[in-house]
Amino acid sequence: MNGAEILLKTAAQAGVEVCFTNPGTTELPLVAAFDIVPGIRPVLGLFEGCCAGAADGYGRMTGKPAMTLFHLGPGLGNAVANLHNARRARTPVFNVIGDHASWHRGADAPLTMDIESLSATVSGWTRMVRSTDAVSQDTADALQAALLGMGATLILPQNYQWADIPDPHIAPVTTNPAEVDDHGIDTAAVALKKGKKCLLLLGGDALREKGLQHAARVSAAVGCDLLSETFPAHMERGRGLPAVARLPYVPEFAIQQLSAFDTIILAGAKKPVAFFGYRGGTSQLTNDTQQIFTLSESMGNAALALEHLAEAVKAPPHRGGQADNAGTPVLPQGTLDAKKASLVLAALQPENAIIVDESITSAVGYYKYTATAPRFSLLALTGGAIGMGMSCSIGAALACTDRPVIDFQADGSAMYTIQSLWTQAREGLDITTLICANRSYKILEAEFNRAESRLPGKQARSLMDLGHPLTDWVKISQGFGVPACAVNTAEELAEALTRALAETGPNLIQVNL
Amino acid sequence: MNGAEILLKTAAQAGVEVCFTNPGTTELPLVAAFDIVPGIRPVLGLFEGCCAGAADGYGRMTGKPAMTLFHLGPGLGNAVANLHNARRARTPVFNVIGDHASWHRGADAPLTMDIESLSATVSGWTRMVRSTDAVSQDTADALQAALLGMGATLILPQNYQWADIPDPHIAPVTTNPAEVDDHGIDTAAVALKKGKKCLLLLGGDALREKGLQHAARVSAAVGCDLLSETFPAHMERGRGLPAVARLPYVPEFAIQQLSAFDTIILAGAKKPVAFFGYRGGTSQLTNDTQQIFTLSESMGNAALALEHLAEAVKAPPHRGGQADNAGTPVLPQGTLDAKKASLVLAALQPENAIIVDESITSAVGYYKYTATAPRFSLLALTGGAIGMGMSCSIGAALACTDRPVIDFQADGSAMYTIQSLWTQAREGLDITTLICANRSYKILEAEFNRAESRLPGKQARSLMDLGHPLTDWVKISQGFGVPACAVNTAEELAEALTRALAETGPNLIQVNL
Repeated sequence: MNGAEILLKTAAQAGVEVCFTNPGTTELPLVAAFDIVPGIRPVLGLFEGCCAGAADGYGRMTGKPAMTLFHLGPGLGNAVANLHNARRARTPVFNVIGDHASWHRGADAPLTMDIESLSATVSGWTRMVRSTDAVSQDTADALQAALLGMGATLILPQNYQWADIPDPHIAPVTTNPAEVDDHGIDTAAVALKKGKKCLLLLGGDALREKGLQHAARVSAAVGCDLLSETFPAHMERGRGLPAVARLPYVPEFAIQQLSAFDTIILAGAKKPVAFFGYRGGTSQLTNDTQQIFTLSESMGNAALALEHLAEAVKAPPHRGGQADNAGTPVLPQGTLDAKKASLVLAALQPENAIIVDESITSAVGYYKYTATAPRFSLLALTGGAIGMGMSCSIGAALACTDRPVIDFQADGSAMYTIQSLWTQAREGLDITTLICANRSYKILEAEFNRAESRLPGKQARSLMDLGHPLTDWVKISQGFGVPACAVNTAEELAEALTRALAETGPNLIQVNL
Repeated sequence: MNGAEILLKTAAQAGVEVCFTNPGTTELPLVAAFDIVPGIRPVLGLFEGCCAGAADGYGRMTGKPAMTLFHLGPGLGNAVANLHNARRARTPVFNVIGDHASWHRGADAPLTMDIESLSATVSGWTRMVRSTDAVSQDTADALQAALLGMGATLILPQNYQWADIPDPHIAPVTTNPAEVDDHGIDTAAVALKKGKKCLLLLGGDALREKGLQHAARVSAAVGCDLLSETFPAHMERGRGLPAVARLPYVPEFAIQQLSAFDTIILAGAKKPVAFFGYRGGTSQLTNDTQQIFTLSESMGNAALALEHLAEAVKAPPHRGGQADNAGTPVLPQGTLDAKKASLVLAALQPENAIIVDESITSAVGYYKYTATAPRFSLLALTGGAIGMGMSCSIGAALACTDRPVIDFQADGSAMYTIQSLWTQAREGLDITTLICANRSYKILEAEFNRAESRLPGKQARSLMDLGHPLTDWVKISQGFGVPACAVNTAEELAEALTRALAETGPNLIQVNL
């Protein structure tokens, strides 16, 4: 069995089923091994950014190791932006990078790069394999690190892929059950009782069904408020679930909202900071008078920690979500704008939908319309690196083949991993992409107006303008093999969305705003 | 004057005229400064890989600092692959990366990354600006490093962009004239006289008109052979110029070709090594019995070194290129294949054309058909990171507005920076893209057949197949605003190419192979 086969066998035994990849010559033994070692299906992306985003989506939905395979430094480089998002989401991504044969690296051939340093910018765990004997244990260690949410990258020189070892030991991947810090629970329970106005700030799996229910129990028992971090990796939301608001993106609003609390308990969320540091602004959104406690450092055991907290405050069992369908929005009419597009989506999204939200400015209103929508999952842009939506949808759809995926997508960001459409078509994935075509980097216009004391000049305006030339999303989508149409009114959008959701396979709707 | 304006003023005074960019919030003072400081025009790309490739093409054609402006770590990450190619081409790229305000970096906001480490993987020179006072000198130092072919990246925190300084000193960029090592020249001259069979291996500016002419003088005087490195950054070629063959990509062929020589002089080329390290293969293409001398370490003064060498061997003046138009290929007929496509291009490419070659496998025959083509420039894939052609063409066309650019482009690689078409349309650039649509990663098929002792199985084949779904390049191109057509025969290609070259503005031809 060669090193490539050993790697795949170790990964397959640990539950890896899919590998998002665009391989090259230095990965050929691994390419060959996919046909020899059963259990892992490679999914081809036309650009590594698409693969990395797909892995992020897959990992967010399954919690299982989300494997990628990339070609040398440039292949990993192309994946950096979406691996950055995955790192912020603490998605269990497991990257394998082929490298030159170890004896060839010193020759500084054209494709040679410092892959370890590159990896360290996006992975909490990086290792260069030093021999074929080490492949299985290195793979197991990488998978274990990935499952801890570190983002793991294993660099495997080609000679250790092709070398054979008789009867290799396949290392198991051991995962410890989630643990919580009982002292932290007790401290939080005391703080919640002592505090006048308390907040549970939820992130990680505190935003999934169990976490939300236990958070609601605590809230009911001690009267604290619940709030979600601004950009959740995977939130469950809708009818039957406790509804939580999101911490605002604009720092002034966030500071104002948080200032109401004297006690803040972080459950799977980081201590909130400003997204950008503005002139005259601050990094911290909290202040020194506030008591801040960390219930759970990890994003992966926040739900369990909340359960313990609920017991500690003697909260009664969860009595069901308070949300009902009274708030379901009415379908709007007439020429579309961002608000109407959000309303149409909120009104029509089917039960069990996975909503990937990379709408940037267009969906500002969307979130509040969906508190009582049919139960759904929401995947947000965790790391701010645009190009996540088109690709994340691939992984979410492959992870949950029985759930419709809707990518609520800004046009500027969609361009970054536009090649994702091809993989959507190739795999026949049930993804509906709504391109919010406002033909500008609207967020940049907003930030310019905020930051600069002058109007943008001609050059500055040219850097925010996506209207020259006008992108024809329908043609581009069809060119990649995804059926598409364009809509101008709310009625047309409702009709097109209804039709797209009724069909299997991918669809794209250019939503002219 | 604020730090952003100081940076642009320093760059403009050093001759920077264009900046390839996709900025974000942390670059807004620089965005605003484009309208305040005259001299530098920002050119928008829809993805940073397009900007980096454009800068590479611009720098290769002009030798001037090729400026980019990117948004934080993810923006730079998206540019890594093409910056890697630029590094291998020793293109004078000057990257500016906006970072969070220095006081905000420690907050670890969602977009925070280790930009310095990321930059060091592709830049020979990286610096984080530490104060607004330092901006001008830091910029000048970066430009100087860029002009030495190091690839320079300056990271400018946003607070040092927006802070004002009264009457700042604008640091000049001093460049030393190219120097050559006379001892090295003399050693090479002696070696050439002593050697039985000698080779001048040419790279860098040894492949430009002057370099080629002086190399031909040396060859005529001492009877040595001339050979080009495999992937030249910018070679001048065609009628009136000495014709040189290229060192083969396949290591066995390269070793065989080089084994004929007992003496090898490197003029702007690195000591040749294998592109990949194959099982049972070696890194070095030369052997211990061969004498190898470095005439010029730098790629930028190889032509001058060759001139000195020509004087040292008392070579008579250059008598004009030996190539004439006797070898101009006849237009082929019938259903297209890669050879016919190459012949059509070689037969029709107009005088002064810039040929960007990212055809990978399709243009294997093209090079030899062009020895007597009308004079042209050839830009090859220097670093092996695919995604160079579509974007490099942008920079070449902006650098040389009076020269037609033809991108001879593989379909797999074209996908990597497909968004380049939009900038081509926006800027009205005279670029004709020939998509060699063979619907596969053909190079990977070839490498698989070479490396593996088995036929590719179903999974492996799926990773080389680009035919499911079939990409409609015409629709995609039109979607980005670039007129396009598809051709199936040599006659259709000849007609479409002739028409495209007669038009101004970009065109794309899907060449069905």
